[in-house]
Amino acid sequence: MYLDGSSWQERYFCDEIYTLRCRIVDKPGMLGRVISAIGECGGHVGDVHFAGLCDETKSRDITVFCDAEQLKTIMSAVNAVNGAEVDNVVDEVFETHRRGAIETFSRMPIQSLSDLRMIYTPGVASVCKKIEKDPDTAWEWTGICDRVAIVTNGTAVLGLGDIGSVPSLPVMEGKAAIFAEFTGISAVPVLIDSKDIDTIVETVTLTAGSYGAIQLEDIAAPACFEIEEKLQSRLDIPVLHDDQHGTATILLAALITALEQTNRKPEDCSAIILGAGAAGIAISKILLDFGIKDILVYDSAGAVYKGRTKGMNKYKEELAEITNKNCFKGDLLEGFKGRDIFIGVARPNMVSKEMIAAMADGPIVFPLSNPVGEISREEAAEAGAAVTADGRDINNALAYPGLFRGALNGRAKKITLKMQIAAAKTIAELTPEGRLLPDILDRGVHMQVADAVEEAI
Amino acid sequence: MYLDGSSWQERYFCDEIYTLRCRIVDKPGMLGRVISAIGECGGHVGDVHFAGLCDETKSRDITVFCDAEQLKTIMSAVNAVNGAEVDNVVDEVFETHRRGAIETFSRMPIQSLSDLRMIYTPGVASVCKKIEKDPDTAWEWTGICDRVAIVTNGTAVLGLGDIGSVPSLPVMEGKAAIFAEFTGISAVPVLIDSKDIDTIVETVTLTAGSYGAIQLEDIAAPACFEIEEKLQSRLDIPVLHDDQHGTATILLAALITALEQTNRKPEDCSAIILGAGAAGIAISKILLDFGIKDILVYDSAGAVYKGRTKGMNKYKEELAEITNKNCFKGDLLEGFKGRDIFIGVARPNMVSKEMIAAMADGPIVFPLSNPVGEISREEAAEAGAAVTADGRDINNALAYPGLFRGALNGRAKKITLKMQIAAAKTIAELTPEGRLLPDILDRGVHMQVADAVEEAI
Repeated sequence: MYLDGSSWQERYFCDEIYTLRCRIVDKPGMLGRVISAIGECGGHVGDVHFAGLCDETKSRDITVFCDAEQLKTIMSAVNAVNGAEVDNVVDEVFETHRRGAIETFSRMPIQSLSDLRMIYTPGVASVCKKIEKDPDTAWEWTGICDRVAIVTNGTAVLGLGDIGSVPSLPVMEGKAAIFAEFTGISAVPVLIDSKDIDTIVETVTLTAGSYGAIQLEDIAAPACFEIEEKLQSRLDIPVLHDDQHGTATILLAALITALEQTNRKPEDCSAIILGAGAAGIAISKILLDFGIKDILVYDSAGAVYKGRTKGMNKYKEELAEITNKNCFKGDLLEGFKGRDIFIGVARPNMVSKEMIAAMADGPIVFPLSNPVGEISREEAAEAGAAVTADGRDINNALAYPGLFRGALNGRAKKITLKMQIAAAKTIAELTPEGRLLPDILDRGVHMQVADAVEEAI
Repeated sequence: MYLDGSSWQERYFCDEIYTLRCRIVDKPGMLGRVISAIGECGGHVGDVHFAGLCDETKSRDITVFCDAEQLKTIMSAVNAVNGAEVDNVVDEVFETHRRGAIETFSRMPIQSLSDLRMIYTPGVASVCKKIEKDPDTAWEWTGICDRVAIVTNGTAVLGLGDIGSVPSLPVMEGKAAIFAEFTGISAVPVLIDSKDIDTIVETVTLTAGSYGAIQLEDIAAPACFEIEEKLQSRLDIPVLHDDQHGTATILLAALITALEQTNRKPEDCSAIILGAGAAGIAISKILLDFGIKDILVYDSAGAVYKGRTKGMNKYKEELAEITNKNCFKGDLLEGFKGRDIFIGVARPNMVSKEMIAAMADGPIVFPLSNPVGEISREEAAEAGAAVTADGRDINNALAYPGLFRGALNGRAKKITLKMQIAAAKTIAELTPEGRLLPDILDRGVHMQVADAVEEAI
């Protein structure tokens, strides 16, 4: 813990990173004074690079983890050091997305006319003819086997809501970069400028020919359910809404670890889920399939139960059939009483310490809403939670690359609940002692998830 | 020339390439015998690689340029060499297309949690918010500025015709590989499983948000005209049908060189064009704009003239308005008489030596139909052509990468005839003495074309 109460992790994983180009008089001791000035303002210093020499000053690029407010203070503090000056500031998050996060390359360098004539006309004609004669071979002789469409209409982007399809593109490109880095999948952002379910289904169906799978992303509920269902029924490649099933898969992986850490068996556990949108419904289903049978789901209208009339839709009605067997109608605090597991996929700050304290002894508390959880991990721990993690700890980027890689490797026609549970179990198995989930950067984890998914087809 | 009458170029640019893995007894002289056996069958030998050692034999990978028929003869000949045996044959054209010709990568390696949190959630949210607030900045903070959709429905693929969208995918991936290699454009093959004009227009319009330009490809005439027109009127990014304008641009470049080589001025020249499809119409228009005013176009129903009733459509009617001022109605041989330039974009072997001989002295003859020209270059030369080149020499891959790169660099809203002519002139200027076109593999040429196109916006 730091003096201001924040943990090292929270600080270090600050979501804003700036690089300050500082001109500093070239004398021993000067750099230390600048770095100290930054530190005194609460900025965490990353890399320091020598960037140039001019007369009696050196230019240094100093990377600082801090938020935009702190940045101003830090710049003033550096400028206040005698012999130091900030020349320029680069916002590293924006730099990461400059001209987009992904790029397409030719697999073969085109160095001779023969190369050109094999990759393009006239040589390519023989490959086309082969596929025309035997359509199944397109899997072997084109990139379909490695290509996933990331489809969105931008109606439910991160914690930002309905921002439209083009503003959501950096998210889709980021997802594609992760696909490429972790599992060698070539993903294509596909923006659809429509909110009409049938238009989206028709557009994807017409253009699905060059993809081996479809990832739906950031499409608002309940439209996302119908789009997924209709597309999966029309296409013979996997169609998976990541906000539902990617989230449910990684949540289950974390839960498996947490159950072990608290010596619980799934069949003895009860859970309360706050949020009956895309993620809440998918999480309910995967938990039921995994063996957690006693589940209560709350949304803004209270507990979801059979026969409720307020704020229902056919997906919540289905949910009411499979959860809340006793038709419990109590308020949210009542709902928490005695429960072993809390999962929040609703909105920030909706849960109090009192609610957590009302749960069973040493409960598992996962407040996943973005960018801030339903309750902070610290408050949850203070209220007695034995295991707690939020949306920063439980990241679907640990699930979806392996899910799709495994499905593509096995040429699956859909990604079933069985495949998702296999992925979750493998992720849990690969978790090092004392941690909740494995290292998301470990490429080996993603490939082992892929293998497990392929085996579960 | 070789003994069988073929030129070195024709042989070397054979469109089939095989690699023979041969097991050969490890004694001096043996490799020579094998290579000689291949040569005696007419196979051109490329690289020879040492591939392994086993007991008293060496394995060698020998790359051979030959067609499938010759391959059989060559394999028998190698097997007939005492102490040599063909173990395995790899078809290099197919290998080029295995798992597709293109791959997508993350521009930034994801090596730390900070990297991940900048490229994806939560850091990416600030980029999304920026674009939501100021949509124009999507050009800077996403890959739109480098991304081109290659849209096809597979109805007019190379010389193969209507083979369907998925069998056409290797062509689209090949084009994307060329885009990437020559100009750093990230192109996405977009297959649309429809022949309905409005469906195609609607599908592209709905999904155009993530692209900086649209390249239409291998869509049959006359649908391609209407699709291009409608899309360009609905989108504020360039929409260009490559089979029309890419072909017209590179043809014009070659023609500019040929006019210089034969000391002709465009305004003094007359041309006959065989084929009134996508390419024929676009070529007619670019030639008119360039200054060649006397043009006769023929299709399967004869000369296109104002008032003709047979086999017309609105595009041919438009063509009849701007060409064939004298309403000439003679047959094809009549049409050739006295013309300086012949351009064929119709079908193989439709033109006789007699027709070429009927042209003006030392005519320019470009029989471009694929895979075989309207007349062979050799026959055209024998009949008196001063300059002749076919579809192998005049390749639109020398035009389209620079056209799109220039349009993207200048953020053009369309690719005008003026930009196409600027590209053609630059290509002609960059042509080395004695050649018809510059080296297609020279990246510098493509970038200079891009600069010229950008300047002409």
